[in-house]
Amino acid sequence: MRYFKLTIEYDGSDFSGWQVQPDRRTVQGELYRAFGELSRGEIKITGAGRTDAGVHATGQVASVRVETDLSAGAIHRAVAAKLPADILVKQTEEVPPAFNARFDARSRRYDYIFMMKETSLWRGRFLPVGSGIDVHGMRKETRGLVGLHDFTPFASSGGPSGSKRCRIIRAELIEARPLLILSVTADRFLYNMMRSIAGTILRVGRGKGPGIKEILESGNRAEAGPTLPPHALYLVEVTY
Amino acid sequence: MRYFKLTIEYDGSDFSGWQVQPDRRTVQGELYRAFGELSRGEIKITGAGRTDAGVHATGQVASVRVETDLSAGAIHRAVAAKLPADILVKQTEEVPPAFNARFDARSRRYDYIFMMKETSLWRGRFLPVGSGIDVHGMRKETRGLVGLHDFTPFASSGGPSGSKRCRIIRAELIEARPLLILSVTADRFLYNMMRSIAGTILRVGRGKGPGIKEILESGNRAEAGPTLPPHALYLVEVTY
Repeated sequence: MRYFKLTIEYDGSDFSGWQVQPDRRTVQGELYRAFGELSRGEIKITGAGRTDAGVHATGQVASVRVETDLSAGAIHRAVAAKLPADILVKQTEEVPPAFNARFDARSRRYDYIFMMKETSLWRGRFLPVGSGIDVHGMRKETRGLVGLHDFTPFASSGGPSGSKRCRIIRAELIEARPLLILSVTADRFLYNMMRSIAGTILRVGRGKGPGIKEILESGNRAEAGPTLPPHALYLVEVTY
Repeated sequence: MRYFKLTIEYDGSDFSGWQVQPDRRTVQGELYRAFGELSRGEIKITGAGRTDAGVHATGQVASVRVETDLSAGAIHRAVAAKLPADILVKQTEEVPPAFNARFDARSRRYDYIFMMKETSLWRGRFLPVGSGIDVHGMRKETRGLVGLHDFTPFASSGGPSGSKRCRIIRAELIEARPLLILSVTADRFLYNMMRSIAGTILRVGRGKGPGIKEILESGNRAEAGPTLPPHALYLVEVTY
């Protein structure tokens, strides 16, 4: 048995998300297929973040257990040749057997990218929001995310039960006109949490609705903003 | 009769190009449909550049003749509501009847965008070329384009007959890592000329094939580089 850590970029547009599902095209499913042709025995692939349908990644991480004699470099080249064009393994490293991409992750960073003008050309990559939004107000809200909070109001039903406490390590609103990037690093993210946070902060940018702090204190899901579409969300980095 | 000048952005991915064709989805076809619902009589729409299937535009210009009493502002809003999400009219101005977007254009600017790293995420927008290319050599070739030349070697068969002389007004290779933008402004472009120029310059960047000057002097189509794919080409600006 050999153990590898993969750093992966993908275009989420044509995937039913990360997680393998019968009869659906998923990123994990494509990786299973590619590694299946290289392994003499059973394979196991674990991703750090189970991104939804349409969500992109520039720094997803997966741990892979595979029965092979190939080196990391040979695995890297062989898998690259077998993967479709919308998945790119950026790095393949050999790791100790105990490494688990999901449970060993210390933090994950997601970026939600707004575009401050109308666009026909980039609508599948960024969320067009027009130019008349209050970036200053949005930045204030973004800063208010940092710390340990119960994110129940920002978790979609359908996620697992259990604690909804997440520690936000860093939260920034980066202005790179015409792009506006909401970048959040946390120890964990609840189901749809990042898209719901983005929806709340955008609503503030439009001068409407309660802010993050107020919603966290209320504990009320109905207070949170809309869950924004997946195509402007990127899993950017996982740290260990 | 009223006459308007439109400045148009579109995502070329799902169009069979600019020009209206029976049973094909085209940009001009969608504009005819949208204006058709506003006009009491016959419409005429002329584009400055007849972009191919897959080619994008951020600054296409069209002239429109339409029978209506609506102001430019009202036309602008009404057409926006009728167009699909992959076409955006950025500006609508009333112009004199004599204005013709195609024949009055003094120059057109096309950008061909390379991406200097492997990518799964941006492959539908830029052409991934890896990082090991000779940018300096490519820049030298790009400069050699400027001036009045017979571009026969860079014209695909299938274009109209007649003079193949084009005046290149400006030609630049803009480094915006990881992007590398080949930006060319000319009084006219022959069929597939920009994609063939880009293929020749990229080939030089890989240390192969003859340069632009040599090919122009030879007059031989077989000397030119490959016609690169359309999805990395943008019609950026038309000047009058």
